[in-house]
Amino acid sequence: MTPFIAEIVGTFLLILMGCGVNANVSLQKTYANNSGWIVITTGWAFAVYTGVVVAGPHSGAHLNPAVTIGLALAGEFSIYDVPNYIIAQFIGAMLGALLVWILNIKHFSATEDGNTKRGVFCTAPAIPNTVLNLLSEMVGTFVLIFAVLYFTDAVHTSDNSIIGLGSLGSLPVAIIVWGIGLSLGGTTGYAINPARDLGPRIIHALVPIKNKGSNGWGYSWIPVIGPILGAAIAAGLAHFLQ
Amino acid sequence: MTPFIAEIVGTFLLILMGCGVNANVSLQKTYANNSGWIVITTGWAFAVYTGVVVAGPHSGAHLNPAVTIGLALAGEFSIYDVPNYIIAQFIGAMLGALLVWILNIKHFSATEDGNTKRGVFCTAPAIPNTVLNLLSEMVGTFVLIFAVLYFTDAVHTSDNSIIGLGSLGSLPVAIIVWGIGLSLGGTTGYAINPARDLGPRIIHALVPIKNKGSNGWGYSWIPVIGPILGAAIAAGLAHFLQ
Amino acid sequence: MTPFIAEIVGTFLLILMGCGVNANVSLQKTYANNSGWIVITTGWAFAVYTGVVVAGPHSGAHLNPAVTIGLALAGEFSIYDVPNYIIAQFIGAMLGALLVWILNIKHFSATEDGNTKRGVFCTAPAIPNTVLNLLSEMVGTFVLIFAVLYFTDAVHTSDNSIIGLGSLGSLPVAIIVWGIGLSLGGTTGYAINPARDLGPRIIHALVPIKNKGSNGWGYSWIPVIGPILGAAIAAGLAHFLQ
Amino acid sequence: MTPFIAEIVGTFLLILMGCGVNANVSLQKTYANNSGWIVITTGWAFAVYTGVVVAGPHSGAHLNPAVTIGLALAGEFSIYDVPNYIIAQFIGAMLGALLVWILNIKHFSATEDGNTKRGVFCTAPAIPNTVLNLLSEMVGTFVLIFAVLYFTDAVHTSDNSIIGLGSLGSLPVAIIVWGIGLSLGGTTGYAINPARDLGPRIIHALVPIKNKGSNGWGYSWIPVIGPILGAAIAAGLAHFLQ
Repeated sequence: MTPFIAEIVGTFLLILMGCGVNANVSLQKTYANNSGWIVITTGWAFAVYTGVVVAGPHSGAHLNPAVTIGLALAGEFSIYDVPNYIIAQFIGAMLGALLVWILNIKHFSATEDGNTKRGVFCTAPAIPNTVLNLLSEMVGTFVLIFAVLYFTDAVHTSDNSIIGLGSLGSLPVAIIVWGIGLSLGGTTGYAINPARDLGPRIIHALVPIKNKGSNGWGYSWIPVIGPILGAAIAAGLAHFLQ
Repeated sequence: MTPFIAEIVGTFLLILMGCGVNANVSLQKTYANNSGWIVITTGWAFAVYTGVVVAGPHSGAHLNPAVTIGLALAGEFSIYDVPNYIIAQFIGAMLGALLVWILNIKHFSATEDGNTKRGVFCTAPAIPNTVLNLLSEMVGTFVLIFAVLYFTDAVHTSDNSIIGLGSLGSLPVAIIVWGIGLSLGGTTGYAINPARDLGPRIIHALVPIKNKGSNGWGYSWIPVIGPILGAAIAAGLAHFLQ
Repeated sequence: MTPFIAEIVGTFLLILMGCGVNANVSLQKTYANNSGWIVITTGWAFAVYTGVVVAGPHSGAHLNPAVTIGLALAGEFSIYDVPNYIIAQFIGAMLGALLVWILNIKHFSATEDGNTKRGVFCTAPAIPNTVLNLLSEMVGTFVLIFAVLYFTDAVHTSDNSIIGLGSLGSLPVAIIVWGIGLSLGGTTGYAINPARDLGPRIIHALVPIKNKGSNGWGYSWIPVIGPILGAAIAAGLAHFLQ
Repeated sequence: MTPFIAEIVGTFLLILMGCGVNANVSLQKTYANNSGWIVITTGWAFAVYTGVVVAGPHSGAHLNPAVTIGLALAGEFSIYDVPNYIIAQFIGAMLGALLVWILNIKHFSATEDGNTKRGVFCTAPAIPNTVLNLLSEMVGTFVLIFAVLYFTDAVHTSDNSIIGLGSLGSLPVAIIVWGIGLSLGGTTGYAINPARDLGPRIIHALVPIKNKGSNGWGYSWIPVIGPILGAAIAAGLAHFLQ
């Protein structure tokens, strides 16, 4: 797999399973209906895990423009590859959201509330407030990027050589995302990823859904700009603390 | 243990604990009654973990005809061993389901609804729809097989030698199944394994249960064909992306 | 630490945290009151984890007469050390249960039902049935011992040398116990450990509790004999399958 | 990062995410409102994980005066560095709590009960009782410090060399804290960390909150002294058992 394909595939898996758990919990008549925040956050954590396990060895598994930009700003990723990665992430996210919609068409039909249906695709603030919502997305993404920048490899100390932990080594980033969701996700739904939010929002705007609610375009810039700002601050702070 | 025995034992443990958590949550008067989707999905994840820990070193721990077929199609498993593995998986699954029935006989008696009782053994669609139900099983199994095909080993980079992580190395597949359940399981109950579904369904048909509901034969081919198609697509896509 | 002390300390931690989560969930006015089966089973899993992390390097962390007997029958533990280990396990379990009682005295007072209060200490069947309850404890313990007997170490394949994973290496046994609780615990409360059940039951009989219910002596032999039989079958089957 | 900065940053992340999950679950109109004890305890566990992943390689990631004092008493940390570490921990905790307050200002406004609002910042006893509340904090912290003192590294047995597991190696301490919360947290809310409790309590006293409840100064010494005593006992017992 080329990095471009890996970012598409990994982000596709991330959004298939992430928006998938949203659908499972929010839409009517699923077996997981109304199963709560622990299911939402665990589902997104393992969505990240799945995407990272597959894409990791091939692209580094950013799966998130904020990660790509954060790593580029931190000097750990070539600035010239940023646009390609972001394009791939949006393609993957949109394909994932499209498949979630197809899989759950009957459950969308069984659900009345338009906002609930849009919530399968993209985030909305629990209490709308531009400054605080933006700050929420900045802080959540800051934690993600900052932690990722401080990840350390397994090391064999006798010769200082590195040990790659294989697929188990994708667990830390999943745990960080799990924690961000549990702890910081209750205010805006923790997009913390422009592709995760805007890609599925575009799909929501395009596909036919009965009683479709607003696309939330007025809010849509916040989960794009907030994560980028948060990533920039994380990269800047990590640089400053070196 | 021969691979044949290992597949029996591993699938027995998988179904004992998987259908076991179904019984715990669905049947009346258990301590886990009505404890929700997080219990169901975590229970199935650790059912996989237990089966894989035991069978892994002896058979590779497929425990699932879709895994066996997927790996064979991907060229990672001998086509000649496929029938043996599948037979063993069905034997194990049927024995596991039989023991779940025995352990919970009194709780089956305490439960009225026939569909709930069948649900301990095998899956049924939340909203019946042949195409979408089949697609659900295809997509869930696709994610499983595709992720498994991209699993990577732990590696000591100084000499490029492999490190087996022992029993801890069975965690990634359990996490993937956990995630599939949380995110994609709400529509059809995520059989994603023909032996897991058809084996216990046969046991349901054979054992005496008061007020037994339908065996769901009309639906029974979907969690057999869907997973096989999903595995084939995963193997094909992984081959294409090489 | 001598192995004897390590078994006391490890079993003390196991029961302090295991009966502790029972108290947290079952007794009135705790912050965890009525928080469900996922809390109970996760709590017991990490109780095992804590005990095993501490005692593991010093005694092998059996913390359970069924484990001690199972390993002895499987030829992996000296038969002469069995009595010492079991005595230590009972001492640890009783001390742990005593401390749980002390910590929760006010919550015991705030709780009316005698059976609920006894349930903090020891198990009782959801539906009393001697044969099936015994079988439940046998099967739960069988899974535990059988899985433990098949645990494999991490290995560096270039020179076939073993890698000890340190404290992270205690995770598999915790996950197995987590899974047993989720999947097989709903019928009898999964003692799967004679010391875990009888030790705290003795403490229940000895300490003053208002409106104390029955000590359940009539049932008390089942979570002692069942686990020993289950361990014996696991050891026998593992031997047979070699 | 110097150790001083690392302790600030790590404790900041710990409290941002720990008090963050309190806010998510307790305050009105968040998406995680009323999502229960499993969310609280998992959130705090991964808050610890995040702080330890970042600070671990730079300061050892105490993030807790009780850990600092316990390790110093156990001879595993220089007594001269204790004050610096504790100052850093309080700075980090107060900054973290401040940001939680800012992020959730609108949710504080949407919540009536003053005690609920204070509960985002600091702990309070479920049933007030000086001796038993102090004991609860002692026992919880004892388990934490005692387990940490017995943590073992991964080891390559062929040459007895140590293997650092990198970021995955921060998982054991998170699991221990998870278990303490599940099993011992229901009586006093498991501060088990003087900085975690007193730092945010000071912030609660300083920031403007409508219908602010009492600061709970009368109770505030218990989650400071209890953890220190528990840590001292853990260090003493570990020394005695050597």
